[in-house]
Amino acid sequence: MKKQAAVIGAGSWGTALASVLGQNQHTVRLWCRREALAEEINTAHKNEGYLKGIVLPDNIVATTDMKEAAEKASYIVLAVPSGAVRKIARKLMPYLHEDTIVVHAAKGIEPESFLRVSQILKEEWADLSFRGMAVLSGPSHAEEVAEQQPTTVAVSGTSEQVQTLVQELFMNQAFRVYTNDDFLGVELGGALKNIIALGIGLTSGLGYGDNAKAALMTRGLAEITRLGTHLGASPLTFTGLSGLGDLIVTCTSEHSRNWRAGNQIGSGKSLEDVLEQMGMVVEGVRTTEAVYHWSRELGVEMPITEGLYKVLFEHVPPENMAKSLMERGKKNEKEHSIMLLDNN
Amino acid sequence: MKKQAAVIGAGSWGTALASVLGQNQHTVRLWCRREALAEEINTAHKNEGYLKGIVLPDNIVATTDMKEAAEKASYIVLAVPSGAVRKIARKLMPYLHEDTIVVHAAKGIEPESFLRVSQILKEEWADLSFRGMAVLSGPSHAEEVAEQQPTTVAVSGTSEQVQTLVQELFMNQAFRVYTNDDFLGVELGGALKNIIALGIGLTSGLGYGDNAKAALMTRGLAEITRLGTHLGASPLTFTGLSGLGDLIVTCTSEHSRNWRAGNQIGSGKSLEDVLEQMGMVVEGVRTTEAVYHWSRELGVEMPITEGLYKVLFEHVPPENMAKSLMERGKKNEKEHSIMLLDNN
Repeated sequence: MKKQAAVIGAGSWGTALASVLGQNQHTVRLWCRREALAEEINTAHKNEGYLKGIVLPDNIVATTDMKEAAEKASYIVLAVPSGAVRKIARKLMPYLHEDTIVVHAAKGIEPESFLRVSQILKEEWADLSFRGMAVLSGPSHAEEVAEQQPTTVAVSGTSEQVQTLVQELFMNQAFRVYTNDDFLGVELGGALKNIIALGIGLTSGLGYGDNAKAALMTRGLAEITRLGTHLGASPLTFTGLSGLGDLIVTCTSEHSRNWRAGNQIGSGKSLEDVLEQMGMVVEGVRTTEAVYHWSRELGVEMPITEGLYKVLFEHVPPENMAKSLMERGKKNEKEHSIMLLDNN
Repeated sequence: MKKQAAVIGAGSWGTALASVLGQNQHTVRLWCRREALAEEINTAHKNEGYLKGIVLPDNIVATTDMKEAAEKASYIVLAVPSGAVRKIARKLMPYLHEDTIVVHAAKGIEPESFLRVSQILKEEWADLSFRGMAVLSGPSHAEEVAEQQPTTVAVSGTSEQVQTLVQELFMNQAFRVYTNDDFLGVELGGALKNIIALGIGLTSGLGYGDNAKAALMTRGLAEITRLGTHLGASPLTFTGLSGLGDLIVTCTSEHSRNWRAGNQIGSGKSLEDVLEQMGMVVEGVRTTEAVYHWSRELGVEMPITEGLYKVLFEHVPPENMAKSLMERGKKNEKEHSIMLLDNN
């Protein structure tokens, strides 16, 4: 059934999700910041800056007017950088109503507050009533989604009904949506894996090979699972699409800007230079900062996050970090980092 | 302390393991089938056919004489294709003694008997007494190990002492060895992951993208974990170096011959042509055959293995297999394949 949907954010991921909704014949309003981009999408049906060479469905209407985008929508899909979530949440307030379902596809943890995106939204919208919220996450390069290459993602919702409605909204032949009741786990996996992707990029930049990268990914998954289970998520979610799946796709493909940022830092560039040159938000940097402090507060051991934090923010040379991770003293695989259920 | 070690099998993995032992200043005899290869290793310190461009430590002595290789060894490292294990085990019988520790690094399941390599060895050596056995497995392309790039592997032994001795034998700055008490899990992970690598190669050959590959790897890990836990292995081992780690390295690198074989089959070649052209053993093919029948006998659901078996042995077109895997009916991530602990 045809729905009214708004997608907020016309970066690569927002545009790709709008494409899926457009393919599904929903009425789609895509909100973007820049007028020139809205015009490119509406007239040329392209977003060359973010999705090079891809033709978008012509039923996507872009606008820079939040009211026009969101007012009539029964589904609002948030695809903005996690650092922009608070500001956007405030702008959206007038347009939420009792039937609105908000789907977020942002991946990050807020520094200092240590809040997940859904918690920020709940905080900002504490006085409003709306139908519910869902999180969408999984191994999904935007480019491939926009090209209708087969992709699977997980969705979790604040109620089973919301979850199923969001699944139906997005599901099609190429874009497969699986439900998962573990909202916390689905949301955390997507946010935390960017830390590990940065770390893997960094070791690649240092010239480490595939063996070292596979070992670090394995220990990286154990590390983010350890934090997740400490907070109450299911360890199984971290072995699923929004955990392991997303980790693999982010760490093994040069599409990922987290991987690329890490790679350049490993090659000797400073964080400032890398961020300036990329001109896009690198979620993993902000998440590393937040999670480093968070894990210390919680007493959860996260050696990769800690090492990366020191490279990014305390000028420790990346080669020292990589070396110390490869040569850690412990010699039993289980004490090392594999005890997923051990919170110490 | 300097030890006497024999490595049986001078393919890429045997030669790489002999290199590690040579770097550690042990006395190494490397057994190979062909006289010409023994001579290349002894005179040029190279094995160009398997490890192109790599110079081997000059304390590796190659021989085609099993007696010369194994007679004085207190450690015998088996690095032959799993299909050759029985024959080699019989040849080794005269040279096993009470102090011998056998380390195997072969990855496969025997068709029909469904035996693991360590079980084949125990069967063949039922009347002999030797000190113990260990399995060595993990994310380790031979090329990188021979180049002393950082690598981590897991070792499990028939006793804690054997396990620690084998760890000490191999451990050095670049080659990090972690112990894991779950012998069954370590051995199974290495064997079973080749099935998934074949499947991932196949989808790549069909032109599927990174999103689909990440999804299949995620479900592949769940599938081999399901079989492993059914048999009594720990699910945690499958999230460690010898499970997830080895799966990642095998699925994401074109070094892997399982991946390459799958890729060519996905591109439309027949199994016979691919095997003939590669001229090396592709463990995943034999393991797929064994595990397909085994899983049916045990009643464990393994849809990727089943799909692959039908492509390899029943002439089902690969595109049908990939399509049906991507479009399976179930819509909840946990029912789908993520219930690691569910044996049904």
